[in-house]
Amino acid sequence: MGFDLTYAAKRAEEFAKLRDWEQFHSLKNLSMALTGEIGELVEITQWMSDEEVTELLATSEGRARIEEEVADIAIYLVRIAQRAGIDLSEAVERKFSINEARYPVDTVRGTSVKYSERKS
Amino acid sequence: MGFDLTYAAKRAEEFAKLRDWEQFHSLKNLSMALTGEIGELVEITQWMSDEEVTELLATSEGRARIEEEVADIAIYLVRIAQRAGIDLSEAVERKFSINEARYPVDTVRGTSVKYSERKS
Amino acid sequence: MGFDLTYAAKRAEEFAKLRDWEQFHSLKNLSMALTGEIGELVEITQWMSDEEVTELLATSEGRARIEEEVADIAIYLVRIAQRAGIDLSEAVERKFSINEARYPVDTVRGTSVKYSERKS
Amino acid sequence: MGFDLTYAAKRAEEFAKLRDWEQFHSLKNLSMALTGEIGELVEITQWMSDEEVTELLATSEGRARIEEEVADIAIYLVRIAQRAGIDLSEAVERKFSINEARYPVDTVRGTSVKYSERKS
Repeated sequence: MGFDLTYAAKRAEEFAKLRDWEQFHSLKNLSMALTGEIGELVEITQWMSDEEVTELLATSEGRARIEEEVADIAIYLVRIAQRAGIDLSEAVERKFSINEARYPVDTVRGTSVKYSERKS
Repeated sequence: MGFDLTYAAKRAEEFAKLRDWEQFHSLKNLSMALTGEIGELVEITQWMSDEEVTELLATSEGRARIEEEVADIAIYLVRIAQRAGIDLSEAVERKFSINEARYPVDTVRGTSVKYSERKS
Repeated sequence: MGFDLTYAAKRAEEFAKLRDWEQFHSLKNLSMALTGEIGELVEITQWMSDEEVTELLATSEGRARIEEEVADIAIYLVRIAQRAGIDLSEAVERKFSINEARYPVDTVRGTSVKYSERKS
Repeated sequence: MGFDLTYAAKRAEEFAKLRDWEQFHSLKNLSMALTGEIGELVEITQWMSDEEVTELLATSEGRARIEEEVADIAIYLVRIAQRAGIDLSEAVERKFSINEARYPVDTVRGTSVKYSERKS
């Protein structure tokens, strides 16, 4: 299940170039587009209980709805990284290390509230 | 620049398991966490002109700020895909095909507004 | 508990004018700022159960945290309406009527899923 | 242009009660719904230049599109305040005072970047 970032970034770039849409793909505009897609993901489950979400994901139609929004987010994210000159693999690797240091297992185990407080 | 999704998903899962945080990682909660991270990304550039964004990205400190938020988004997205049983690679591949069909080059070239209207 | 919109809009405008921040308050930038504030609101409760949210709201400190984010959202929303030439009172009145027609009591009573589907 | 919060909160409550939707209106769910509406607002202008936004707002159809999303946000915000036991008027008043103290005119005048940094 490797995700070929180089391929995805290249395909997203070509998609934009062919349509002359690179002119619209500033970091700010792409961040707004990402916001829109998050909104669409969130809307799907906003009124559901966790059980209803599980039922939704158990149907291929339901999973496809989630999948499409997740893919939209992924594509805009790859595009943002590309436009910002960020290596997404390295960025994620670095962030994992930061998080592992920031939330020591012994201190935060099982405690959601502490986590929220540390975050802010 | 391959992004090893299996590795990222596994590391995110272990991170949560070690801290007994899986109990908090429902799809709804993870979507909310993703919203929070988008908010943090957007806040960085909200008052900047496009030129100031370019200047920001030209400094290693500025790029690091963007990079950290992009990584947070990527990590939560990988986690959402994992919890939802979605193969992110396939999802992105499928969405590229949908987008290429939905926005034919000849019809939409250079036209942002039409794009917005077609979307909604 | 009347909310004096004229007053709030005027105070927000003066706040911006005194700081020479009107130059930054384009509709797009304000929408991004609004996104950031929503992110901050969502982050507070993202890992909490509904019971923990109730407990949070029962403490004055917890309610104050929610209150501050809600106020930030309200202020940016008033500012957006002002910059867009929108009368917020009329807009809300109109939207109530639209919603009441769109979701007839007999059809949607008690059904969250139907509501979601109708929305999209 | 007074905005009658008591009226809006009451109408929103009755709307939910009549449809037996109060069961879905937890603070978390309402925050997610708010996120979705912000996403819809942001999507309208995401690819536009500031000039195109001005043109959009100059047409009654364009302004109506923005207005509808702004109203959706306002309604969910009123509802969130109501469910959280927050007096929106007081909250906004208090936040204006905080902001005025936090961003002294002499220090921040004309400086967007400083503002962003102080925020985070």
